[in-house]
Amino acid sequence: MRILGIDPGIAIVGFGFVDKQGSRVVPVQYGCIQTESTTAPEVRLLQVFEATEKLLDQYKPDAVAVEKLFFNRNVTTAFSVGQARGVVILAAAKRGLQIAEYTPMQVKQAIVGYGKAEKKQVQEMVKLFLKLKAIPKPDDVADALAVAICHAHSSGLQDQLNGAWTR
Amino acid sequence: MRILGIDPGIAIVGFGFVDKQGSRVVPVQYGCIQTESTTAPEVRLLQVFEATEKLLDQYKPDAVAVEKLFFNRNVTTAFSVGQARGVVILAAAKRGLQIAEYTPMQVKQAIVGYGKAEKKQVQEMVKLFLKLKAIPKPDDVADALAVAICHAHSSGLQDQLNGAWTR
Repeated sequence: MRILGIDPGIAIVGFGFVDKQGSRVVPVQYGCIQTESTTAPEVRLLQVFEATEKLLDQYKPDAVAVEKLFFNRNVTTAFSVGQARGVVILAAAKRGLQIAEYTPMQVKQAIVGYGKAEKKQVQEMVKLFLKLKAIPKPDDVADALAVAICHAHSSGLQDQLNGAWTR
Repeated sequence: MRILGIDPGIAIVGFGFVDKQGSRVVPVQYGCIQTESTTAPEVRLLQVFEATEKLLDQYKPDAVAVEKLFFNRNVTTAFSVGQARGVVILAAAKRGLQIAEYTPMQVKQAIVGYGKAEKKQVQEMVKLFLKLKAIPKPDDVADALAVAICHAHSSGLQDQLNGAWTR
């Protein structure tokens, strides 16, 4: 099963594709989509949408995972992130993909085993899990990989509940 | 010049197309897109996007106007509205349309002549301006028409500044 984890924003969208192979999770491709602050907002949304479509068509994930909304930022940021998140989710929905959402606490719990872990700990664990040489940069990429790994674990539990131990 | 005013949300998207004919503004079509709360969020976004695309292709506006983000609601609402707003703006951007944004105060100023006017006053003026028999319902539709009229007035001023008094 291939999972796309995504961390949307209007300036940077972090993305990470991972393959779940039995109990292993291996990285396929990761990076970020970036837009320029000097570009009109509607054009930036279009750029995010088109780049997401291209990634989905190239790497064909079976599932998409994003972080659930967080409450500790201001309304303007929420609006802006919401708009970017909307077009990313739309690109996935157009392809019939379901979107799994996880709270930051669920992601930390899945990666570090502790829901209040530091960001740095999560990033170190992402590096270890995926046998990477360094922590992916910028943070948005590491965050995207973290939510993808979180979904791999959760869907693994789901498989067990369904009596299917491997895929 | 045809203007689409739009008031996006995940449950209801109000829309209003108006034609600016010299100094007059006449209604073309208005109503709302609705989605069910029992539907998956990503599918609701897809429904909003597809319905917006259909409207744009049917009524072919020259410009799109939306209200600028507001600060008096909570972050969860802003996120949800932001996502819907993102896919609506995307549909317009895909067609090369520019998006004009107005603050609620600018809309009130343009419609009532007073930036702190009551919602009800704005709705009454929308009815009068467009010679409608009743205030359009739900509120989202009246709000969409209000921002469309606001843009008609503002772009009229812009025309004057550019030395083009009529279009």
